[in-house]
Amino acid sequence: MEPDQKPYVHGRSERESERLRYQASGLAAFLHRGTRYPSGSRVIEVGCGVGAQTVILLENSPGAEFTCVDVSAESLAAAKARVRTLGFPNVAFRRADIYDLPYLPGSYDHAFVCFLLEHLPDPVLALEKIRDVVRPGGTVTAIEGDHGSALFYPESRDARAVIGCLVDIQREMGGNALIGRELPHLFRDAGFIRIRVLPRPVFADGNIPRASEAVKNIFIAMIEGVKDEAFALGKVDKKTWERGIRDLYRTTEPGGSFCYTFFKAVGVRRKREE
Amino acid sequence: MEPDQKPYVHGRSERESERLRYQASGLAAFLHRGTRYPSGSRVIEVGCGVGAQTVILLENSPGAEFTCVDVSAESLAAAKARVRTLGFPNVAFRRADIYDLPYLPGSYDHAFVCFLLEHLPDPVLALEKIRDVVRPGGTVTAIEGDHGSALFYPESRDARAVIGCLVDIQREMGGNALIGRELPHLFRDAGFIRIRVLPRPVFADGNIPRASEAVKNIFIAMIEGVKDEAFALGKVDKKTWERGIRDLYRTTEPGGSFCYTFFKAVGVRRKREE
Repeated sequence: MEPDQKPYVHGRSERESERLRYQASGLAAFLHRGTRYPSGSRVIEVGCGVGAQTVILLENSPGAEFTCVDVSAESLAAAKARVRTLGFPNVAFRRADIYDLPYLPGSYDHAFVCFLLEHLPDPVLALEKIRDVVRPGGTVTAIEGDHGSALFYPESRDARAVIGCLVDIQREMGGNALIGRELPHLFRDAGFIRIRVLPRPVFADGNIPRASEAVKNIFIAMIEGVKDEAFALGKVDKKTWERGIRDLYRTTEPGGSFCYTFFKAVGVRRKREE
Repeated sequence: MEPDQKPYVHGRSERESERLRYQASGLAAFLHRGTRYPSGSRVIEVGCGVGAQTVILLENSPGAEFTCVDVSAESLAAAKARVRTLGFPNVAFRRADIYDLPYLPGSYDHAFVCFLLEHLPDPVLALEKIRDVVRPGGTVTAIEGDHGSALFYPESRDARAVIGCLVDIQREMGGNALIGRELPHLFRDAGFIRIRVLPRPVFADGNIPRASEAVKNIFIAMIEGVKDEAFALGKVDKKTWERGIRDLYRTTEPGGSFCYTFFKAVGVRRKREE
């Protein structure tokens, strides 16, 4: 299979608009809090997609030298165009598979991945491959969600069922939509040391429109994105789906609330003497 | 029914040791972060129990004047003894029911409640009663858990079942173990303004003993506390219970992880002109 044709649970057509909504929501700034790379350091972003994280990385670490890789030439072209338009220097783009990174061991000081491990059948192997291109003493940062963390009011069995559709479909495609909670053991299994995993919860009060917009545009839109597949695979009946989606929207209305927890992990590549 | 005989889902016998484990875990300091009252301000703690939060409040706001009320004379005596032993001045204790607080409107600058609303059949009425004894412009702070937020690895249906026992039993006793996510609408329904609700997640990597100890001593111990009642009420069979508890402990072992989210709300009592 050509890398570009690898299945991607969220589809690829909508990604540019997703990226814009993501940044506008303030979520990007929140997730990148604390991620700053020193001037002159060499940083690799693995799985940059259309550059949703790339532009935030570049804004936050203007003196670092970035290399961004992705398996999809189409996504990479979009990321490149975006970065060029914004006038960022110090960025190289390269098409590559995460399991076959075309770099010598220790080529980078740090590595960054976001919303990538959740799509991979072997996240430990992926972390090992990323670790290998980072120098001993350098760091790898991963940010991932966990759909099991979705906590909302009013509670709804049907809403749980539609979220479950995405979790199931992603699992059948070899991914794991519940990966956030697993970052500690994944980093440990990949041989990192000084591992730090922090939960990053976002909480939207249904009475505060901006926060609720983000829930609708990012989370609910993502669930709605698997509708056709969920029906085709017989994961859910039409009535349950409609009630589930309606109930998710209800959590974004006055009186409702919605909480989701992302997880951010940082691990250090061991030095020979450690 | 005498106030002291009011049923309490967690039981009362173990509370002193629970309090000590709570403080030792560092959770107390974490939950109280950001709660500091100015010197000379009058603060009421409603539902002080055996003083688990009281001593933290006193440490963090040494110049404030505290009044602590609880419905249980026995708990109040324990709280009083503890506070006196530690030599804190500026604390008054009074036995009172939250729905019938013996104070004039606006007697206090601020109010604080922790792990109280979850046990009350009418948390909005309780918040209104607390609001009334606070002056216009003063604040009410509430900290509550939400057992639906428990997120762990390895995932386990049986572990979910045993957590569900506590949720069910607490609901049947008129409480709500899933109240954290509801704080926005509860504060709004009680007429507060400038409401701010923040999730406060704690995440325990099974490889880090101190964090796992807190999960065992606080969360799992609390679930285990309803074992007899769960059996008596036929909520769960013995095999499921044993597997569920075993699976919860597994999340605290190397390779496992456990996340729990508390919610902290602060609301302001409206001034006449607002």
